[in-house]
Order: sequence, then structure tokens, then C-alpha cells
Amino acid sequence: MPLPQPDLPEPAHPDVDSMLSRKFGKEVANYFSGSPLNRVSFLRPDHSFLSAALKHPSSTFLLFNKLEPLIKSPTALATATYAEVRPIIGDDPFEKTEEDLIKEYNSSQYVPQIVFLGLDEKHEGFVYKDWYKGQPWFAVDVTPTKSVTEAAEKLIAELTGRGLEFSKGRMHLSLPAQEAAVYAEARHLLDWNARNPYCAACGYPTMSVNAGFKRTCPPKDIALSVQNPERPPCATRTGISNLSFPRTDPTVIMAVVSADGQKILLGRQKRWPKYWYSTLAGFLEPAESVEEAVRREVWEESGIHLGRVVIHSTQPWPYPANLMIGAVGQAVPGGEEVHLGHDAELEDAKWFTADEVREALRVGTSGLGENAGPEYKEGGLRLPPKTAIANQLMTAVVNGFATGAPMI
Amino acid sequence: MPLPQPDLPEPAHPDVDSMLSRKFGKEVANYFSGSPLNRVSFLRPDHSFLSAALKHPSSTFLLFNKLEPLIKSPTALATATYAEVRPIIGDDPFEKTEEDLIKEYNSSQYVPQIVFLGLDEKHEGFVYKDWYKGQPWFAVDVTPTKSVTEAAEKLIAELTGRGLEFSKGRMHLSLPAQEAAVYAEARHLLDWNARNPYCAACGYPTMSVNAGFKRTCPPKDIALSVQNPERPPCATRTGISNLSFPRTDPTVIMAVVSADGQKILLGRQKRWPKYWYSTLAGFLEPAESVEEAVRREVWEESGIHLGRVVIHSTQPWPYPANLMIGAVGQAVPGGEEVHLGHDAELEDAKWFTADEVREALRVGTSGLGENAGPEYKEGGLRLPPKTAIANQLMTAVVNGFATGAPMI
Ligand SMILES: [Zn+2]
Ligand SMILES: [Zn+2]
Repeated sequence: MPLPQPDLPEPAHPDVDSMLSRKFGKEVANYFSGSPLNRVSFLRPDHSFLSAALKHPSSTFLLFNKLEPLIKSPTALATATYAEVRPIIGDDPFEKTEEDLIKEYNSSQYVPQIVFLGLDEKHEGFVYKDWYKGQPWFAVDVTPTKSVTEAAEKLIAELTGRGLEFSKGRMHLSLPAQEAAVYAEARHLLDWNARNPYCAACGYPTMSVNAGFKRTCPPKDIALSVQNPERPPCATRTGISNLSFPRTDPTVIMAVVSADGQKILLGRQKRWPKYWYSTLAGFLEPAESVEEAVRREVWEESGIHLGRVVIHSTQPWPYPANLMIGAVGQAVPGGEEVHLGHDAELEDAKWFTADEVREALRVGTSGLGENAGPEYKEGGLRLPPKTAIANQLMTAVVNGFATGAPMI
Repeated sequence: MPLPQPDLPEPAHPDVDSMLSRKFGKEVANYFSGSPLNRVSFLRPDHSFLSAALKHPSSTFLLFNKLEPLIKSPTALATATYAEVRPIIGDDPFEKTEEDLIKEYNSSQYVPQIVFLGLDEKHEGFVYKDWYKGQPWFAVDVTPTKSVTEAAEKLIAELTGRGLEFSKGRMHLSLPAQEAAVYAEARHLLDWNARNPYCAACGYPTMSVNAGFKRTCPPKDIALSVQNPERPPCATRTGISNLSFPRTDPTVIMAVVSADGQKILLGRQKRWPKYWYSTLAGFLEPAESVEEAVRREVWEESGIHLGRVVIHSTQPWPYPANLMIGAVGQAVPGGEEVHLGHDAELEDAKWFTADEVREALRVGTSGLGENAGPEYKEGGLRLPPKTAIANQLMTAVVNGFATGAPMI
């Protein structure tokens, strides 16, 4: 049975009829965006804020076991309380200042990762310095390992005993929009911390600070020697280094329209189900504009030469750390011949009519592992679900994004 | 004397009057984009291609000493030949396959960084497999260090003897557009390789592959022991890891328009010259769409609440690894009060009239360390030069990007 396709997030302030929306239309909000949380990013280094938020009766915790979230069902995240996570994280991991914790750094001590996600301002509860109000949300890594093995196993047994489970695979694609956005933030940060235990500049272990949004390379490590804990100099300690901050990989994804505006180029990878196609996509490279990356990727993967490129909307994609930048590009006259021989990434790329794409958007969409809907007929074009920005780009194009009028 | 402001790159295919350009206007190409090179990224792992390109009589080398480029003058890069760099890089660093070089990895051997930048197809020269033609461009790190100290010092003495120099600071902002784009590619890649000598997953040294576009964590290192060179397992060796690929940090930068469309919000940092303002900007965070990041940053830095956000254009910014994503956002009615107390980043933020901004774009722009033009009057608004996307965003807004008509 395919899961129900969840709704997309509402665009911010849909009630405001601004000049920008009159000129460019309503903003397209993609799945994994639309978070209800105010991240108050500037409060993350402030341990008196974090400590009070953590222990506040309204504080709410998403739990992850090996990066998989605790869920009630494929369409609902589960949450936990401070009392439940306390045996794992300790009474107050934010009791000391960040500065003091860096001074006492001991790489042999396991510290379960905590991420402060933000304040849900729609809910009463916590108040800090009058300005910042709402329900504090955190994510905690409860993977049973090292010093927390026993406590984590105990908590997991309790939770699963209540019918909760840690989700396998990407069923998170069926979460309601706002939950999906909060999940995406938590997963991206937990993955980044887990993936980067060592400093790429000096090779020594690093430590999580700023409530999960920064990793620092401490100048001392008691694990080396209590008498002589000094480490060699590290470039990340002189000035600001991007290595200390979470990584997000910009990715371009584009609906390609023919020079006459009548056709749409789609491609397929070998491992996809039969008849399944999607828009082309690829990573932006160093020192490329998005517009250049779109033209390069399309040429490398399909041989098509693009002229004008327009950015349509963007989507966070936490597998593991992508920012999908969705664009529409138009082929130049004479540049429409498909050639797959440059890069071997696609098994096929071809031009479809707007009618074929519109019909497939109606009857042929589904998640990759699922069946298409009941009206789909074998042999017809299959496409990604509306949670994928590819689907939104194709929808925009058949609805007239490029031409100003729906494509017939 | 301020340097002449260089031209911006021409948009791709300006001659094509496509439906997209009729609907959205001409594409804005920002400084550091507009590279003349075809990167043929899929050929980078192919050492027979790289070897032939490197040794071809038309091959051209940009040289960098501690990340500073060799220049003829502040408005022209200098290039070198294969014969000149050969004493540093060796006869043919691509003679063996990548696979074989990984097998022979020895972390105690210094290998000067080489980056393959692409083929300049406007020039005759090299031909590979019939399809790929042009002048090959490379960047080479000639910093005098370790085993290349002597050879590098000799080459540098020769070059400086001819009147060439390694540029200090950011004078590269005065290069012609196409040279600036090639420089940006080279600098971004050399910086990334230099900044990441160790594996963030396991802490062991990594090795440059794919002609400077990838770093791999070899399973063996002869420097450990010739008999026993095995290293511990590393997560980057099982499947594809983003840690192996160059990092680019998406950054949002936005012209903010008031709800009535009549005013533009600008901010200033304390360290800037007097009267100097610019658009707000900040890093995109994990699991944010660009549109959300724009709204968050504007609220955090200025207290303003934004509704609709539209992406305007993008700009590579190789200091060290940014992708500037330029947007225009409109304040919601009642959300225009400036409050600087959230994040302490700005010294001031305030609303300017379109007339003030238009006049400042005419007379008050310059690089940060330079004087404004001769018509500028002390006390008037000062703004960044047209090489900055901030300038292009403000120009778009006063020319009617948000309203459909120029702002009066
Ligand atoms: Zn370090
Ligand atoms: Zn490794």
C-alpha cells in the first residue's frame, strides 16, 4: 500500500498580497521547508539560555537511534520529555559555560549529541529575556554506545514497549509538512556531527559546541595527558573557519524546456523502476553560479545547450546535507540534440510533451519504492511525488512558468 | 587612486530572446561567474586525458603562492607554461592511474597541488576523443615548502625578475570578468585542498585525486610502515561521502523592500567606513530553504518580518568557498520596525528611500578600502561596487524588480 502523500508546507504569510507575489506569483514552499520553529541562532552559545530551555516543563525532545527518528507511525514523529532523556544526557549538560567545557575537554569521554532546534512560538511556555518565548525543541542521539549503552538500551526498551519505533529508511517522507521540517533540521545536524569527529585541518578529535551547530578543535585534551594536555597548533583556532560549521551542499535541479517551449527534457537512472523519469540534477561545483551549474550539468548529462536559466524555489534535503536549488532552463535553438556520451550518469534522457508530463503528474507519481496510483497504465510515464522539488518544477512548467500561459 | 571597476560578465547566450528572458528579463551575471572554460568534469579521473592535456603545447598554468595568484598587474593574471612548472610538479604527475597512486600512497611525500580547471574552447589546440577540444588550463600551488622549496624559490625568482608578482589582498576584484571567474575556480579548489589535509571521519591524512576535485582517504599509507601500511576502516570508504568533495557554503544576501515598496533596508557593520551600508547577508543553515534563511537572517539582524522572497541571481565568492544567493524580500505590513537587539552583528540598520539608494549607486560606490568617486559628497550614503551582488540587488530594486516599474 502506498502511504498517503503528505501536504506541502504553506508559504509564509500567504495572506499578504505583496508586490513581489503579484509580480512573481505565490511562493512555492517545498517539503522539508516550512519549519514552525524560531531557531534563535544567536542564543546557542548562551548556556544559561540552553540550560533553562532544556529543563523547562514544556521542552520537547526528538530521539534518534543511528540517525533514525523515533516515530509513532510513518505519519507521526514521537517526542520524549526531559525526564526520559535525563539518564542519557545527564541532569544538565549546559551547567558550565562553553568556555569551561572546552578547557576541560577530554576526547576519551563520550558525550551524547544534543541539538537545540528552536522555539515553537505557537505554544506558550518558556520565556527568556522577555523577547524569546515558546516551547523549546531539542534532538538527542540515544544510540546505545560507549558510556550510555545501558541507559539508552533501557530507554529504547521502554519506548518500544509503548508501541513506538525507530523508523527505517525514508518513511519520513510521509510526515506532515511541519514535522518533516523539524525532523530535517535534527537529522542534518546529527549526521554532520556524527560524520565529523575529527578536525580536517589537524587530524585531532573535535568537540560539539553551540548546541550542536559548531565543532571546535580544543587546544588541550586531557586524554592526551593530564599534566601535558596541549595539542599542536590548528588553523581552525586562528580566525573563523568554515570547517567549524555545518556543511550544506548546494545541488541544482532543473526542468529543461525546449527552445519553442513545447517540450520538457527528463532523464532516468538505470536503477530506477521502469518508465520512471525525473528532472536532471547535480552538485554545484566550486566557483560556479547556480545558473552556470545548471547549464554545465545539463550539457554534461544530456548534451543539451541551455540559454536563460531562472531559479524557481529551493528545498532542504537532509540525505545527508543538500540544498536543492530548483531552476527552469530553456534550450537554445539548435542545442536540443540529446547526447549521453559525455557523463555516464543517465541511462536515458529524452523530450516529453507537456501533455505527457501533465498526465503523468496526475496519475503516475509515487515514492521510488511504491506503486503508482490506480489510474496509472503500464507503459505510461512515471514521476516523483509532490514531496520532491522535481515534481514542483514540472508542475510549474506545465502550468506556464516559462511561457506565461499553461502549456497545451 | 581607486582601480577601474571591471566589467561584469556577459550573460550566457545574450542573443537568444527566449520565453524565459521575455518573462523574467535578461539574466544577471555576477562577477566571478562567466567562466570561459568547459570543466569536462567527467574527464577528471581519466589520467590519460590529464597527462595529454598537461603536456600539450597549448596548456596554460595559473600559479599560486600561499593562495595568492601570479599577476602581471592588478588588472591581469599572469600564466606559466608546462616547461616552467615541470621542476615543481615533475614530468608527469598523471603518468600512473589514480588507482595505482592510491595504492602507493605515502603521506610523508609532499605532492604540490594541481587543479585541472577546464578547456578554453575558444582556442584551438588540444583534442581528446574527437569531442573535447581547446586550450587546457591548470592551477598549480608553487608555495616554496618541503621537497619543492628549492625549485619553487628558483621559479619565483625568475618570475619576479620578469616583473610579475604574487598579488596581495583582494586586488583580484579588479580583474576582467572572465579572468576573475577562472581565478575563482582555482582559488576555491586550492584553498579547499590546503584546508583539508586530514580526514574528518577518521583523522588520517587524505590525498588529492580527480585533478584536485576530490580528496580520498587511502586504505594504506606506506609512511606508517612498508610491511604493515594498513589503516583502520573509514566511513568515507564505504559508499559516497560528501567529505570527499569540495565544500561550498550557501550564503543568502537580500535587498529588503518595505511593505509599500518605497524604501530599502540596509545595514552596516562597525568595521566599515563611515556612511557605508549594504544589504543584509548570512549563511544558510542546515535544513533551511533559501527563502526561510532570508527571512530568518533579516529578522535576527534587524527585527524586520518578511513575507514573499524571490531569488534574483547568484554569485560565486571564493573567500574562501561561498555561493552568494541573491534575493529580494518584502516586509509584511506592520513588520518594519528595526530592532538590533537579537543578534549583535550590525551596528545599524535603517530604511533608505529609493532616491537615496539610486544616487549612492551613481556616486557613492567603491571597494571597501577605496575612496568613493569624485561626485561623492561627505555624509552621503556609500555602497559596495558593482562587482558585489549587493550592488546588483539594489540596482534591480531601484529599477523596478519588485514593483514592475522603476521606484520613484
Ligand atoms: Zn584542528
Ligand atoms: Zn578517513
